[in-house]
Amino acid sequence: MLENFTYCNPTKLYFGDDSLECLNEELPKYGQNVVLIYGGGSIKKNGIYDAVVEILKKNHKDVVEISGVMPNPTLAKLYEGVEIARNHNADLLLAVGGGSVCDYSKAVAVSIHCEEDPWEKYFIRFEEPDCEIVPVGCVLTMVGTGSEMNAGSVITNQDTKQKIGHVFASENVMPRFSILNPNYTMTLPKYQMVAGIYDIFNHICEQYFSGEDDNTSDYISEGLMRSLIHSSRIANQNPKDYEARSNIMWTATWALNTLVACGKSTDWMVHMLGQAVGGYTNATHGMTLAAVSLPYYRYIMPYGLAKFKRFAMNVWEVETEGKTDQQIAEEGLSKMECWMKELGLVMNLSELEVSEDMIEGIADVTLFMNGGYKVLDRDEVIEIYKKCL
Amino acid sequence: MLENFTYCNPTKLYFGDDSLECLNEELPKYGQNVVLIYGGGSIKKNGIYDAVVEILKKNHKDVVEISGVMPNPTLAKLYEGVEIARNHNADLLLAVGGGSVCDYSKAVAVSIHCEEDPWEKYFIRFEEPDCEIVPVGCVLTMVGTGSEMNAGSVITNQDTKQKIGHVFASENVMPRFSILNPNYTMTLPKYQMVAGIYDIFNHICEQYFSGEDDNTSDYISEGLMRSLIHSSRIANQNPKDYEARSNIMWTATWALNTLVACGKSTDWMVHMLGQAVGGYTNATHGMTLAAVSLPYYRYIMPYGLAKFKRFAMNVWEVETEGKTDQQIAEEGLSKMECWMKELGLVMNLSELEVSEDMIEGIADVTLFMNGGYKVLDRDEVIEIYKKCL
Repeated sequence: MLENFTYCNPTKLYFGDDSLECLNEELPKYGQNVVLIYGGGSIKKNGIYDAVVEILKKNHKDVVEISGVMPNPTLAKLYEGVEIARNHNADLLLAVGGGSVCDYSKAVAVSIHCEEDPWEKYFIRFEEPDCEIVPVGCVLTMVGTGSEMNAGSVITNQDTKQKIGHVFASENVMPRFSILNPNYTMTLPKYQMVAGIYDIFNHICEQYFSGEDDNTSDYISEGLMRSLIHSSRIANQNPKDYEARSNIMWTATWALNTLVACGKSTDWMVHMLGQAVGGYTNATHGMTLAAVSLPYYRYIMPYGLAKFKRFAMNVWEVETEGKTDQQIAEEGLSKMECWMKELGLVMNLSELEVSEDMIEGIADVTLFMNGGYKVLDRDEVIEIYKKCL
Repeated sequence: MLENFTYCNPTKLYFGDDSLECLNEELPKYGQNVVLIYGGGSIKKNGIYDAVVEILKKNHKDVVEISGVMPNPTLAKLYEGVEIARNHNADLLLAVGGGSVCDYSKAVAVSIHCEEDPWEKYFIRFEEPDCEIVPVGCVLTMVGTGSEMNAGSVITNQDTKQKIGHVFASENVMPRFSILNPNYTMTLPKYQMVAGIYDIFNHICEQYFSGEDDNTSDYISEGLMRSLIHSSRIANQNPKDYEARSNIMWTATWALNTLVACGKSTDWMVHMLGQAVGGYTNATHGMTLAAVSLPYYRYIMPYGLAKFKRFAMNVWEVETEGKTDQQIAEEGLSKMECWMKELGLVMNLSELEVSEDMIEGIADVTLFMNGGYKVLDRDEVIEIYKKCL
């Protein structure tokens, strides 16, 4: 059933190996004062920083920097950035980095002209901005989060130990433009590359394994999953394969820019399980998802059997003759498991240094979603975590 | 190979059985003066006109009308509409209808403030607008063209007998918003419904049957085609099935809003063949495409065998064991043929009252594309038309 919905995604995407040049088209659209935002400084080693700064200079921009944005951007860092951007009368926030830097820049964008405390307003009360939003542009250097074309932002409050994401409803929070150059993703270590690939795959799964079967969105999801499986195998053999890396980058954008959730319910329970593990271990996000996915899917499979059967047939090309629906569905998940092992993903929590005695604590901080085929209770979450060890 | 590209599509879509209510959200964003644009008056019979006018009144808009927009909007009609919109100092053009009304409204939008002749500038010289573009909003009542979320416009010059389409590069030509209510499409006669379904399918084919195989866009196309085949069979049995009609409507939008052409070449030769027939016969657009498709695809199949094999496997689930690539590819087209017959599409040109003696003339007005697997010459086009009889 295609439920009623609204779709709007105005982000302009420049895609390709020469796409940074397009920054010259975008910069004249904004005022003089640019805040350049980036992470730990890897962009200074690989030349991207210099290339961006040169274009900013050529366009006579007055630039200040927010550097050192961490993988899980903190509230303290948000306050610091808001102060810098306010003092600079920012006309444009230019994020150069991966999902964390983009997420963070969006949080700054909605906070600069906000008279209330942004943590309370956006991440506790989940309100929409009612102030001016400073435009954000992105130069993407890592793929996975889809932050380059959505209105999501995640901030961690270190005092209260809360990591909270808010997907804003307003398309005005989305980046005005994003520059996607697949070559910029090539310097990433392979561990991070495959973790990112699984993050993308799981974003699609979270939106796919929910609701009824007759939805165009699910057909698009199947196409994206098939493309990702295909390209991931090539990239796993040869991480420098431009074609594979470019298709992965493009799939990541569409996996989480609201399209494949149009008109349907979604789950996101794997992300809740993985994020709770992440809060305990600081493990790589995609690997926490990989470690918890299969026990979760095997647990809920009986409650969404028709969809898991469809997944097996349409994504993994499982032959159906002479098999029960359950056998077909199970074979689909087995094929997914083979693929995950082939990529070298983390397949259990023990590898992430989670031990049995930590599970109660992890369960305590796990959020429970209600869009999947089975709404879990605490005992079931503990049971699933134990199966993940 | 994913070629370099730019993607931007800011149209806001309101989808669902209550979506007209969202007109109340949009109207306050624009000035007082609205031009209401529609076709032959069917919206006055089915109540859509009254519903739209009531919302316009409630929002205190000053409304003038352009009515009688014909299926192939003429240049004379464009001049007439531009005059009306200029005299009204139009702030918003509200198109209520199908693809022709939307196409026409976009042509008016770029012409109101244009100092040159719009035919010469936009449809002969294919230039981009350098004047203010008046915003367009759409309330869609027919599906197929994708005009509700793209920057395309087609105008027919009756004096020179030229029907020319221009897909503008600027996203500013795209509708600002489109209201998609699947119920509005239900009053269409079945012949028009299935012609529209084939038009959608062929839009995807035109973008799919071109270029190499490793592109995410092609995987998305396969998902859209599978969804359309599935829903078309349900709608063919029961045209009032809301779920099927809503999925068809949603698929139509994504079939022609530039997404599935991202990073790849496209063909559009079937449209050229069909449009030439349309110019001679005034037959329904989708039926002209249906009548010429299979002979064309069977002719070019050897030149793009890998893609036709992939089409057979991924869209039509053709079993491959013990078969040559050619057999697999042919079986895919045979399955497509069965589906087309099942829908009751026009399967040959004779049914559209084209006779052999007309073929030379039709070939004379056929445009030749160069994005497909085989660039055709005039003799080949004549050969294909003969096979279509």
